[in-house]
Amino acid sequence: MNRRMVLYRVAQMLFLEAAMLVLPLGVAFLYGEMKQALAFGITIVVSLVAGLPAMTVLKPTSKLIFAKDGFALVTLAWLVMSAFGAAPFVISGEIPNVVDAFFETVSGFTTTGSTILTDVTAMSHSMLFWRSFTHWIGGMGVLVLVMALVPPESGRSIHILRAEMAGPVVGKLVPKIKDTAKILYIIYFVITITEVGFLIAGGMPVFDAFIHSLGTAGTGGFGIKGDSLSSYSPYCQWVIIAFMFIFSINFNLFYLMILRRFKPVLKNLELWVFVGIVFVAAGIISVNIYPLYGDAGEAIRHAFFQTVSICSTTGYSSADFNLWPSMAKSVIFVLLFLGGCAGSTAGGLKISRVILLFKLVRRDIRKMSHPRSVATVKLDGKTVEPAVVSGVSTYFAVYMIVIAITFLLISFEPFGFESNLTAAITCCNNVGPGFGEVGPMNGFAAYSYFSKIVLTFAMLLGRLEFYPVLLAFNPRMWLKK
Amino acid sequence: MNRRMVLYRVAQMLFLEAAMLVLPLGVAFLYGEMKQALAFGITIVVSLVAGLPAMTVLKPTSKLIFAKDGFALVTLAWLVMSAFGAAPFVISGEIPNVVDAFFETVSGFTTTGSTILTDVTAMSHSMLFWRSFTHWIGGMGVLVLVMALVPPESGRSIHILRAEMAGPVVGKLVPKIKDTAKILYIIYFVITITEVGFLIAGGMPVFDAFIHSLGTAGTGGFGIKGDSLSSYSPYCQWVIIAFMFIFSINFNLFYLMILRRFKPVLKNLELWVFVGIVFVAAGIISVNIYPLYGDAGEAIRHAFFQTVSICSTTGYSSADFNLWPSMAKSVIFVLLFLGGCAGSTAGGLKISRVILLFKLVRRDIRKMSHPRSVATVKLDGKTVEPAVVSGVSTYFAVYMIVIAITFLLISFEPFGFESNLTAAITCCNNVGPGFGEVGPMNGFAAYSYFSKIVLTFAMLLGRLEFYPVLLAFNPRMWLKK
Repeated sequence: MNRRMVLYRVAQMLFLEAAMLVLPLGVAFLYGEMKQALAFGITIVVSLVAGLPAMTVLKPTSKLIFAKDGFALVTLAWLVMSAFGAAPFVISGEIPNVVDAFFETVSGFTTTGSTILTDVTAMSHSMLFWRSFTHWIGGMGVLVLVMALVPPESGRSIHILRAEMAGPVVGKLVPKIKDTAKILYIIYFVITITEVGFLIAGGMPVFDAFIHSLGTAGTGGFGIKGDSLSSYSPYCQWVIIAFMFIFSINFNLFYLMILRRFKPVLKNLELWVFVGIVFVAAGIISVNIYPLYGDAGEAIRHAFFQTVSICSTTGYSSADFNLWPSMAKSVIFVLLFLGGCAGSTAGGLKISRVILLFKLVRRDIRKMSHPRSVATVKLDGKTVEPAVVSGVSTYFAVYMIVIAITFLLISFEPFGFESNLTAAITCCNNVGPGFGEVGPMNGFAAYSYFSKIVLTFAMLLGRLEFYPVLLAFNPRMWLKK
Repeated sequence: MNRRMVLYRVAQMLFLEAAMLVLPLGVAFLYGEMKQALAFGITIVVSLVAGLPAMTVLKPTSKLIFAKDGFALVTLAWLVMSAFGAAPFVISGEIPNVVDAFFETVSGFTTTGSTILTDVTAMSHSMLFWRSFTHWIGGMGVLVLVMALVPPESGRSIHILRAEMAGPVVGKLVPKIKDTAKILYIIYFVITITEVGFLIAGGMPVFDAFIHSLGTAGTGGFGIKGDSLSSYSPYCQWVIIAFMFIFSINFNLFYLMILRRFKPVLKNLELWVFVGIVFVAAGIISVNIYPLYGDAGEAIRHAFFQTVSICSTTGYSSADFNLWPSMAKSVIFVLLFLGGCAGSTAGGLKISRVILLFKLVRRDIRKMSHPRSVATVKLDGKTVEPAVVSGVSTYFAVYMIVIAITFLLISFEPFGFESNLTAAITCCNNVGPGFGEVGPMNGFAAYSYFSKIVLTFAMLLGRLEFYPVLLAFNPRMWLKK
């Protein structure tokens, strides 16, 4: 492995994190939060100092990056980034416990949105901003951002993009990785700012509009009120619904639309399956919860809000689905697994993987009755490589095994089967809320430190799609070739 | 498709079912249950009459059976067998409703053991016997029994064995299929009778000993008391534990032991992983439930009873695990999926599939860091065919999809998330009990007819390992070539 190159990239990332911490530092000054400003300042300095050796004396001789280097780099970078990102919470004393602060930061970067806070309204403005800003950074991937900013380097950087971006197939939009990363981030930035505008236009306070736009963009879910978005106007809720949906669509499609190539967008199977799932689920839930609200408009809004929130793995809520009838809860339970489209900021299994699983099943059933048929799996008219297809079913197995192990590890918690099971699922899928104790109006505060550590790893595993983290636990991987 | 041959085989099966119904008929005479005797008599006559045309005028010209014929045959045979098997319950009026009787019979043949009865003690002896006898017939497979009894026929009967027997790889013990089937059934019969002897020796009434031995042998779980085996002596419970375990081991191993070939038995990975799972799970549960019983011996017995009962997919119980703490319930929840060894009468995913899934995951993780490595998956020293390996991961996907759909279809039931989820899982895995409403001391009586039909299909899908039933729903399959 090219260990020096990995360290170099991690150091680059630390420099970038230091730069990003300037934003919450500014917010702290703006609101006159001096203790918080100090906490951000210290973290910035420590990050720069920690990154310095790798950037200077340890500078790598070879810039070549292989697949396994990409995996190691991404895992290490995310751990380091979360550790440094948690520092301001601890130093300022707003989340004094290290395990809690690390959980909260990983929950932020992985865009999960599960919280250990019992009273979010007691937090300072700058800490709330940093907490939500981690969603935005983690949503698209921090190493992708590094690639967008630093000069192009030789050496197969596609492996970094592949390891950090979500979905079964990750490709380049344009020949150069650097340009691909830049285009993705420009689209990301523009849509986020657009959402801010829409929310402010609807009367949402400026600070709230920024927080919720960052949370929506990363499909994270951190808010600033105990009841999430329940107390905002229906207009604001519909804006959030629209943007949660937008941010769980493959970003490649936005790029194609910019290029005025609408045909491949209209023919994109993943998009339409996603739309279908959202409408069918929200439809069923609307009918099921109608008696609870007695108003069709309200029932439909709450149904769409919760459906899109869970499908996009954001985790915001306009109502407490814990109190909904069995059928609505069951639909939400299944949605917890699915996630959004590949190449978006959404987590979960991803719709394209679900489609490929169904196609794989259909192919194997056909093969049973016609054993000699050569059956290929197609997606959007193109044949999917056999390795990718079989990789999807193995991925599904890894995914279920990790969920099962996470669930068993936290099963001693006294909150009951339903809470523990959905806690494991919601963390592995980076959604945020579950049922019972971890419902949309509650959080993970009551869980033990052991369980918080387990769930922190579950969030990282889910966000990085399991393999990089699992590989990083193989000591042989770190040996020099 | 060789439709005539399929019908011929189904008719053979009906003749066999008629012959088997003579046993409960005898029990009815023994206990002087004349109304019940009449019900069995009518069913026997109708079965023979229904099977006659296919056996005579429609006799097939070609005896060749292909893979897809095997699947079609098995699906059709199981539906017909269950329909005729349900008749005595309806005719005698002991289960007057057709949907209920069909559910109970399918639950019997598929060795699930879920019941719609609210008071099992109100049933007559002969009906209880028939109910438990369906477990014994379905456990090993009725078509396997047909093959064991009728003269050997040419024409690839291995496809029938493959479609009806459980597990990722089904092979012949001896060159001739007929002899393989015969050996399997002799082993099955001898162990069942041995269990009867052990139970009677422990003071269990003769009738009860037969019922519970049939239920154990098929890993079914139908009993004759409202509290399953809770009221029997610890000795009897340990005997049941031992035999539930024995019947979830691959029958090939017993054959090897008869041949005094102990080495492959001792080296059988599936067996030892199964043993490991049972001991680890029972160990955790013992510690977890100890405070409830305050007696180590009792806690260990209940832990082993429930663990082996769920692992073997039998479903008997010595205690109500619904009342156990969260951790014990969580372990049981995960065990609901696993099942026993391939080639046994146990249902579920099967241990060998779980092993292959883990090996597949390990192979794919290795491949990630060494993309050019050619990695094969080995089991017991032999390389597993790539098609089998990738087939296992697709199987897992089909399995999870069917569970999810079953769960969603019954999610309108008002018994809550936990009951509905475990109802779907327990039926798809042919286990029997779940949590909440469908707990070990309750049943499916309160579910609607719609849900009962859905769950009946789920049991059939699970027992026949999904593909045959899914293929049978493809109309093209039934066309003549």
